[in-house]
Amino acid sequence: MAVPHDVVVLGGGVVGATCAWRLAEQGLHVLLVDPEPGAGASHAAAGMLAPVSEMHGSEPALLRLGLHAAGGFADHAARVQEASGLGVGYRPTGTLLVALDAGDRARLADVRRRQEQWGLQVERLSAAQCRQREPLLDPAVVAGTLVPGDHQVDPRRLVTAVLRAARERGVEFRRTTGEPAVTAGRVTGVRTPQGEVAAGRVVLATGARATAHAPVRPVKGQVLRLRGNGSPVPHHVVRGTVRDRAVYVVPREDGEVVVGATTEDLGYDTTVTAGAVRDLLQDACALVPALAELELAEAVARSRPGSPDNLPLIGAGDVEGLVLAVGHGRNGVLLSAVTAQAVTALVTGQDVPPPVAACAPGRFEELVRWRG
Amino acid sequence: MAVPHDVVVLGGGVVGATCAWRLAEQGLHVLLVDPEPGAGASHAAAGMLAPVSEMHGSEPALLRLGLHAAGGFADHAARVQEASGLGVGYRPTGTLLVALDAGDRARLADVRRRQEQWGLQVERLSAAQCRQREPLLDPAVVAGTLVPGDHQVDPRRLVTAVLRAARERGVEFRRTTGEPAVTAGRVTGVRTPQGEVAAGRVVLATGARATAHAPVRPVKGQVLRLRGNGSPVPHHVVRGTVRDRAVYVVPREDGEVVVGATTEDLGYDTTVTAGAVRDLLQDACALVPALAELELAEAVARSRPGSPDNLPLIGAGDVEGLVLAVGHGRNGVLLSAVTAQAVTALVTGQDVPPPVAACAPGRFEELVRWRG
Repeated sequence: MAVPHDVVVLGGGVVGATCAWRLAEQGLHVLLVDPEPGAGASHAAAGMLAPVSEMHGSEPALLRLGLHAAGGFADHAARVQEASGLGVGYRPTGTLLVALDAGDRARLADVRRRQEQWGLQVERLSAAQCRQREPLLDPAVVAGTLVPGDHQVDPRRLVTAVLRAARERGVEFRRTTGEPAVTAGRVTGVRTPQGEVAAGRVVLATGARATAHAPVRPVKGQVLRLRGNGSPVPHHVVRGTVRDRAVYVVPREDGEVVVGATTEDLGYDTTVTAGAVRDLLQDACALVPALAELELAEAVARSRPGSPDNLPLIGAGDVEGLVLAVGHGRNGVLLSAVTAQAVTALVTGQDVPPPVAACAPGRFEELVRWRG
Repeated sequence: MAVPHDVVVLGGGVVGATCAWRLAEQGLHVLLVDPEPGAGASHAAAGMLAPVSEMHGSEPALLRLGLHAAGGFADHAARVQEASGLGVGYRPTGTLLVALDAGDRARLADVRRRQEQWGLQVERLSAAQCRQREPLLDPAVVAGTLVPGDHQVDPRRLVTAVLRAARERGVEFRRTTGEPAVTAGRVTGVRTPQGEVAAGRVVLATGARATAHAPVRPVKGQVLRLRGNGSPVPHHVVRGTVRDRAVYVVPREDGEVVVGATTEDLGYDTTVTAGAVRDLLQDACALVPALAELELAEAVARSRPGSPDNLPLIGAGDVEGLVLAVGHGRNGVLLSAVTAQAVTALVTGQDVPPPVAACAPGRFEELVRWRG
């Protein structure tokens, strides 16, 4: 008879896979259940590790969490590479926020003031300084902010490597769908179309599909991948606002350039639309005209798991034995390591560090829709 | 021992496949050689049968040829359907040329005058009449021309059906590349990587790859396919000029919408570029904004076989026994049936009808580059 599993992780995106790996490192017997690990939102993600660039004055808890995660990401990337023997494309080249007109410039200056109030490292750049750093920028760029600490990783390589590390640590895999099995208010395992798997603990990391147990909603994102074939590409991550739409350009080590992303409050939907591709290409080429020469290699759409306050839900779920690791929104890749660390702490009875403690699902107890 | 082939057709695009079928109908023993029949320019083609819409005052021979071909296409489509048992998506819904500003309107009026001088059926439409016929047109449309005789066919379905008809008529297929084998100024068959195939006649229908025997050049075209999934799509083929770029929108019976096409004088190149996709989507949505809601299902690039005077080369080649059927440029689908008819006449010693006789390759005898 098979040894029962200590923990079943539902969902093999970057969050679930990292949880499974770290739990197995604690000596636990872990099963990961996912019909196609890494094929969800992680497959579309651009991999920006950008809490400073994405700072909103109104979300201090998210900023604290993001800074905590970004601060440890280089070490995490190194550990994943070490454990898997695979590269993850971590690239500490910094992010350049650019302004295309006077309104943009004022907006960047305003954000920069708030960034500096938080003690964050940002640098004001003139138009000439922008172009010196990125000669491919459109001549219309009038100013910029350099964020040296906002780095990037390649989410596809990262999730592949984490899955490999998990497998080598003894995590078992079942390629199927699953739901927590609950009896008398307690998790008893996971129900799959092939039968039930017993386990005392279930980690729910199914992203936008976790609606039965968490107040998450799908937020559609469409993303493009361009390929250089030796053509010049930017050196930094470049972000800007074109026709009131935010756009980013993420150049990888291997010449790939990711362009994203739409934010559409739709149901679960993976359709690539003509209008989104048009807008993304228009806007990205407005920042970096030379991108027009690159190959359009891929367009994908996935659903991010949005949460009501943009903080993820990490902690005890609505039934005993259920641990949530969902609702990461745009930040699943960035927050994957700190989420896995917190989940491991919860499962092994340790304390969760403060920035992650703010993600306890209990803050939504009044949302009767999903609890009770 | 195998029976020797009477004719080998090199190239299984819409032109070569139609030649092979029609030759086999004459009782000839035909071999068609192509590594992937139907995967070249025919795979990208939009299938507009549009000699009137595409009329240039300076190319009367091409117009005569196109009108001759368009006049017989409905019968040809019916014959292909009959012979293959497959639909080809022939759709006689007419073409709407639209003007987005006063300059466009003047241009359309000018072309319409010349179209009427040729006795072609065209109808001037006001802005209101355009929108009455196509409610999805952008409100910026100020006038139009309806060309009721410019129809469409689905090139992918057509080439599939013609290949099936050819096979059922006894055409043999070899999935490989080939070149005419020539001894003492006479074709002796076809050389393939797997050995030589003997034949007294070779029909060269390799499109933009026929450079060794004909003055053709690759003209890159990038084309998109959108998918409706029940969304409203136009009823007519819609064509216009946006930012000085010609764009067309071809709605199929099944909800697919083809958007094309770039015209790039590049070497043989099947790379889809970001800039081309951006321009095609921008321009198509400028004519029909609702297209932005459709799925971007596919983007492909292929090389049309351009000729020096935009007329194809149909007739005796530079060595005895070689028959050319290349250089069809944008018109391979439209001209496929009349080309096959002419090639069959040439091979069986009949006369070629006048509009096709103008395509005799002899007109380029002075082009020593390709003729000895």
